[in-house]
Amino acid sequence: QRLDSSSYPSHAAAPNRQRSDLFGKSILTVDTFGKETLNDIFNLAQFMKTNVTKGRVLDDILRGKVMASIFYEVSTRTSCSFAAAMQRLGGSVIHTDATSSSAKKGETLEDSVTVMASYADVVVLRHPEPGAVTRASRHCRKPIINAGDGVGEHPTQALLDVFTIREEIGTVNGLTITMVGDLKNGRTVHSLARLLTLYQVQLQYVSPPGLGMPKHIMDYVAYKGIPQKVYERLEDVLGETHVLYMTRIQRERFESEQEYEKMRGLLVVTPQLMTRAKRRMIVMHPLPRVDEISPEFDTDPRAAYFRQAEYGMYVRMALLSMVAGVNPLT
Amino acid sequence: QRLDSSSYPSHAAAPNRQRSDLFGKSILTVDTFGKETLNDIFNLAQFMKTNVTKGRVLDDILRGKVMASIFYEVSTRTSCSFAAAMQRLGGSVIHTDATSSSAKKGETLEDSVTVMASYADVVVLRHPEPGAVTRASRHCRKPIINAGDGVGEHPTQALLDVFTIREEIGTVNGLTITMVGDLKNGRTVHSLARLLTLYQVQLQYVSPPGLGMPKHIMDYVAYKGIPQKVYERLEDVLGETHVLYMTRIQRERFESEQEYEKMRGLLVVTPQLMTRAKRRMIVMHPLPRVDEISPEFDTDPRAAYFRQAEYGMYVRMALLSMVAGVNPLT
Amino acid sequence: QRLDSSSYPSHAAAPNRQRSDLFGKSILTVDTFGKETLNDIFNLAQFMKTNVTKGRVLDDILRGKVMASIFYEVSTRTSCSFAAAMQRLGGSVIHTDATSSSAKKGETLEDSVTVMASYADVVVLRHPEPGAVTRASRHCRKPIINAGDGVGEHPTQALLDVFTIREEIGTVNGLTITMVGDLKNGRTVHSLARLLTLYQVQLQYVSPPGLGMPKHIMDYVAYKGIPQKVYERLEDVLGETHVLYMTRIQRERFESEQEYEKMRGLLVVTPQLMTRAKRRMIVMHPLPRVDEISPEFDTDPRAAYFRQAEYGMYVRMALLSMVAGVNPLT
Repeated sequence: QRLDSSSYPSHAAAPNRQRSDLFGKSILTVDTFGKETLNDIFNLAQFMKTNVTKGRVLDDILRGKVMASIFYEVSTRTSCSFAAAMQRLGGSVIHTDATSSSAKKGETLEDSVTVMASYADVVVLRHPEPGAVTRASRHCRKPIINAGDGVGEHPTQALLDVFTIREEIGTVNGLTITMVGDLKNGRTVHSLARLLTLYQVQLQYVSPPGLGMPKHIMDYVAYKGIPQKVYERLEDVLGETHVLYMTRIQRERFESEQEYEKMRGLLVVTPQLMTRAKRRMIVMHPLPRVDEISPEFDTDPRAAYFRQAEYGMYVRMALLSMVAGVNPLT
Repeated sequence: QRLDSSSYPSHAAAPNRQRSDLFGKSILTVDTFGKETLNDIFNLAQFMKTNVTKGRVLDDILRGKVMASIFYEVSTRTSCSFAAAMQRLGGSVIHTDATSSSAKKGETLEDSVTVMASYADVVVLRHPEPGAVTRASRHCRKPIINAGDGVGEHPTQALLDVFTIREEIGTVNGLTITMVGDLKNGRTVHSLARLLTLYQVQLQYVSPPGLGMPKHIMDYVAYKGIPQKVYERLEDVLGETHVLYMTRIQRERFESEQEYEKMRGLLVVTPQLMTRAKRRMIVMHPLPRVDEISPEFDTDPRAAYFRQAEYGMYVRMALLSMVAGVNPLT
Repeated sequence: QRLDSSSYPSHAAAPNRQRSDLFGKSILTVDTFGKETLNDIFNLAQFMKTNVTKGRVLDDILRGKVMASIFYEVSTRTSCSFAAAMQRLGGSVIHTDATSSSAKKGETLEDSVTVMASYADVVVLRHPEPGAVTRASRHCRKPIINAGDGVGEHPTQALLDVFTIREEIGTVNGLTITMVGDLKNGRTVHSLARLLTLYQVQLQYVSPPGLGMPKHIMDYVAYKGIPQKVYERLEDVLGETHVLYMTRIQRERFESEQEYEKMRGLLVVTPQLMTRAKRRMIVMHPLPRVDEISPEFDTDPRAAYFRQAEYGMYVRMALLSMVAGVNPLT
């Protein structure tokens, strides 16, 4: 059914409906977001979730708008999440990837993005080089959403992570959040740790030797006054954890297969291990997982990682509507 | 023009419009379909055909819905047919293929499908392994339509084949249907033969030595009481055939080029050969064809193979609307 | 906002709205277009530009229609421009490229196009072989728009070039148009030169030795009574030029790197060089550029090449609506 007017004021009925503060702006990093902007995004994402879940159609919000999706690095998951988000709002998508782009003819990133942007109302850009998205945005008259630039930023991932915690537990404040895995090379946990400093949380890190959270992140977290602790074994921190954030450990980071297998065994979520965890807590993972979480745990209500993927779509719906359209909640 | 209310009751005008029995269900095989379900599908496919042909817009049926199209094997034809079907009903599509998927990062099929499904309302899945689609459907909260799993099932192909016969000849009962080519390795003819046992037909097989219809299919057909005969030469059966179902013969199935050329010559549809056929009969082919049907025959009114491709879109429109929306005929 | 009735009569309010002369017709070349058809296309493209720029939604024009986009040669830019055009008009797109098509299974171009066309209302086809698009159109019941066939035709490029001049300068008649670069191998400038003979213009050519405008094009232009001159140095013609049409010079056309560098230096647009040009003129380029135009010139108001890319979308919107729908201006 269409959205009824009680839940979603139509254009005619809402003369005071406004563009958001983010209208026409590029989303390059979450570092510049204050709590108020975050709350606007999350409230809108929740509105999207409610309506999609109830089968209500939201296609007036970005009707007639075009999103250019430009991926210089394959990420099916991210591009499909953005595409579904745009289309659920009534917009449409044009997509290009590096392998089929004019990049081969020697064209600069700036030129490629400018041309694609000229067909579109909003650009979603992913690139393997840190800073590339910001660089492209300087030459572009249309707003760009950073869909990941190498080891740089991936703002929509950090936002969906916090949104997941908020939706699953009801609040972020007061929680103990434990990050597990290769914290040295994991872009996801770096952004998440920084973003979480806006809340009153406790951070805990569990990682193999040499793959701990980098000093510059820990310094930033400390500077913000957020307590953090480092552990070696998952079972030591499980009992007090509200959010267990698992990440992939890549085989090639280890000196030997033996080392890898040993470490992996200590950092794998299984139903058995999880008997030691709280009954009300959640397990998250940015996906894809390899062996870090046993599939046997998938049916546990605490397994939030697939819902987390779905929440990503709602966060992207919120951002797209704020950047390229109106905020239907105002 | 938009659909007028006389031909297609609007939501408001049809408070009793219902979800079909297939709503929310996966379509994995046709073996479980009874005659009644088949008739529902075909009547709805005919409704789609009539409206599309007349230029009527049907975009209320799946407005706001998203179809995830996941292809672990390239099949442009099938994926485009589904995409056109979904979009003609007002829905949108997110697409991924194996080469660009997270499969490379070691993710399981189940995980990949679960994530894509979390963005979508219905999933269309093609995979080279028999049984893979059924396996994926067990972990997925959204309905999955099997778009072919290797030598396993390809239910929409079998349905469109029967729908083609129905539309072109007006009935299926009482017909003599002749299947020609490599019947041993042709998944299409296996499914079609099984599905046709629901009707009163006569089946005839013409194939090169060693490439005949497998025993388990012939046993099934016999068990259902359907008469079937085996022939070696196409011209021997042409005169009594109502439906000539041609399939590809792959060069690599033969011991020598000479063998291949010899056999091919006996199993090729040409205008000259077709002077021996009935004037009211049809020639079908799942496409792509190579040499089995001479292009000179294309303009013959009995050449139904391109219309057959088009009918596939209407059958997929029917299935998508029954699985993910409402049946506009109820 | 939706288009209000003053600017765009709705179906109900415009009983006399008509299909254009191009309805249902293939667009294979611009050679057959007269001035009147050109004016219809450009007026409609201007209407599209105005509405898109003002954020008005045009999605009634091709609502429910499907465009099949078939690319046997990669051209992200062209395919995305067509896809954005179709979707802005309310239509949808199914896309296939050669690498993932049934071409590999030995299917002919004609068969592949016929099947894709059976799902669609209009076909956009690009192919590396001259004449291939015309050949495919003979077997196809749906209108085909040529999106480039090798060194043959690329009608939408020629149309967007003339539309750019018209939009930027206000008229085409009376202008001096200078084409620069590898004019021998540049399909774009061949089509443009031919199309410009419909107007009262002066043509000037500047190219490296051996890469001049081919005789058959110059003969055609002369036959049409259009004055044309050949130059060796860009600075000799800059002062009197209203439209400077730059094209790429490919390194591999030259005997030595030294030759290439020397020539390139003479044919590069820079802010410094452009101080010699008129203040009211434009610089065009079909893009992608490599080194022919210095990025420092991009912010100059005379730099029209990125607007030119955008105009391409409006021209394609006009063509699609005339071929597959109605002309909203009639």
